[in-house]
Amino acid sequence: MSEAAVPAAVDGAIQADVVIVGAGPCGLFQIFELGLLGIRAHIIDSLKHPGGQCSELYPEKPIYDIPALPVCGAQELVDRLLQQAKPFNAQFHLGEEVVELRILEDHTFLLRTSQDTRFHARTVIIAGGLGSFQPRRLGVEGGEAFEGTRIHYKVKSAAEFTGKRLVIFGGGDSALDWTLEFAGKARSVTLVHRRPEFRAAPASVSRMRDLVEHGSIKYVEAIAQSVIATDGQFQGVRVKRNDGEIVDLEADHALVFFGLHPKLGPIAEWGLNIDKRAILVDTEKFQTNIPGVFAIGDINTYPGKKKLILSGFHEAALAAFAVAHHLNPAKKVPLQYTTTSPIMHKRLGVPD
Amino acid sequence: MSEAAVPAAVDGAIQADVVIVGAGPCGLFQIFELGLLGIRAHIIDSLKHPGGQCSELYPEKPIYDIPALPVCGAQELVDRLLQQAKPFNAQFHLGEEVVELRILEDHTFLLRTSQDTRFHARTVIIAGGLGSFQPRRLGVEGGEAFEGTRIHYKVKSAAEFTGKRLVIFGGGDSALDWTLEFAGKARSVTLVHRRPEFRAAPASVSRMRDLVEHGSIKYVEAIAQSVIATDGQFQGVRVKRNDGEIVDLEADHALVFFGLHPKLGPIAEWGLNIDKRAILVDTEKFQTNIPGVFAIGDINTYPGKKKLILSGFHEAALAAFAVAHHLNPAKKVPLQYTTTSPIMHKRLGVPD
Repeated sequence: MSEAAVPAAVDGAIQADVVIVGAGPCGLFQIFELGLLGIRAHIIDSLKHPGGQCSELYPEKPIYDIPALPVCGAQELVDRLLQQAKPFNAQFHLGEEVVELRILEDHTFLLRTSQDTRFHARTVIIAGGLGSFQPRRLGVEGGEAFEGTRIHYKVKSAAEFTGKRLVIFGGGDSALDWTLEFAGKARSVTLVHRRPEFRAAPASVSRMRDLVEHGSIKYVEAIAQSVIATDGQFQGVRVKRNDGEIVDLEADHALVFFGLHPKLGPIAEWGLNIDKRAILVDTEKFQTNIPGVFAIGDINTYPGKKKLILSGFHEAALAAFAVAHHLNPAKKVPLQYTTTSPIMHKRLGVPD
Repeated sequence: MSEAAVPAAVDGAIQADVVIVGAGPCGLFQIFELGLLGIRAHIIDSLKHPGGQCSELYPEKPIYDIPALPVCGAQELVDRLLQQAKPFNAQFHLGEEVVELRILEDHTFLLRTSQDTRFHARTVIIAGGLGSFQPRRLGVEGGEAFEGTRIHYKVKSAAEFTGKRLVIFGGGDSALDWTLEFAGKARSVTLVHRRPEFRAAPASVSRMRDLVEHGSIKYVEAIAQSVIATDGQFQGVRVKRNDGEIVDLEADHALVFFGLHPKLGPIAEWGLNIDKRAILVDTEKFQTNIPGVFAIGDINTYPGKKKLILSGFHEAALAAFAVAHHLNPAKKVPLQYTTTSPIMHKRLGVPD
């Protein structure tokens, strides 16, 4: 007798008991809660670093309502959760967005990321927060037609823009770094920012101002109004200066660095029951309409739901028990206290 | 027109929007969550200090599963929660057990404590943990009949025992302190403890041993077996020594200090739906079958319930919103983040 052949779809995929989609605070605490039950997790996030919106949107802001932490910076919270999850050696897959979730015949799952990493998972926990982080769009009349060809939200290859006329939008580090990078290499560079204050490093800002003073690049305080196009050809961007004047900036390409914001993204296409951009779950297991797929944190909804980090922590704890049961329905999973249980101490690496 | 007369039952009672029954970790965090919504709480606990079982049963034990606190002593957790709740000035009523909960005609509540303090409350949140702490009983054959007259779990008045023959049970501070106190004042004192190790302060133990050596008191390593009674009169306690011998200790009174343990107690009589010693609640408001009465933490149950402190924290947050709605159904209570909301900052006392 030979073993049943592995279906082609999962051939070469990473085998996982559980894949956590999203490495924000709830995803990180999910690693911990699964670890307490002896389950090791894979965790995927579209961002290049763990922490989700805490790290991406407000790392230095204080949070006051984490129980027993009267005040805690958002990045500090993430660091604390990473430390707490450490004994459980989760495997992180960062900078990859899960673009596809397929249910296989045996009720296991195939996940595929934007980097084409594939996971064959027995359970999936979606801890996607407000969704995956997507670049904020330029959002002007006539813009959509040129996205990806003339309007860009990241630089895949710098060579593409060498010798071209560029208009760069934004006031953060990405906008300033690329402005400095392309000065002298592009045929022309015009930086557009909506206000005098920059979020970028002060050194970059003063270097940019020097280049403007020497006439190497241009700087305009303005907001984008529309794309200039003739016969369907991109000609540049029309902006409205802060003094009210409308100015046409001729360019071959527009590079837009307005930062990232979360969007539900591909998750909306996975056959999950969704209510107002959130995934419907029960309050016993935090399971979705697909058995074996759970959702915790800001991305889920149920009667009474509040988008509080501390609620996500509770949801992670109950989802962990549900995953343990799903993986091994015959085995009872008793509640053991970290304070007293030798098994918990062993898993945590605490000497008894 | 005159205002409707205050019903006699609530005359002189403390008026409260909300009374929290139980000052363990969940009760303390409930103060905080109510405070964020602008609601000030009264909180009652049968113990003389806040912290519930964390402080009473295992103050020095480390807890590992409080989110973002990789390790936290139980008493440290309580101290942190007290600090977090501080801006909200809850009024503590400690050393009082709630013995009665009455529903008034207008659907408000009258609570009465063991000290006869009365509260007229619009809402009640039961955060009673495993119940109120009661002294562990001597638990021997024939003992019950003499509880309160010859078998005592606390000393109300030392004068009652002066000149009497006493047998004192226990190995903690209470047992040792009263042994030392009554040596020379009682006609005789016999200390009974089940093993050579004492939980009491070493200085008290060595002082006790000195008194034994000088013949001022007796010490027996034994466990109680039965009450000795003749014609319904208490004669003393029969004990089994660790060497197996049965010994009769003649005494007028037995003082028993075996520590406290939690019992559901009077809560069982309040008309709440109870399942296996826990109060049934929904998972939207954590409300009991009595509208306006909520239950959070280890004392409640619902599908999926795990007795985890972090679950109690989530329950406290949702119960706070439900209480706010109950107190003022016409007013919308939006979710505001402590990170960004000026109202939250004002309530927390954070300078903007």
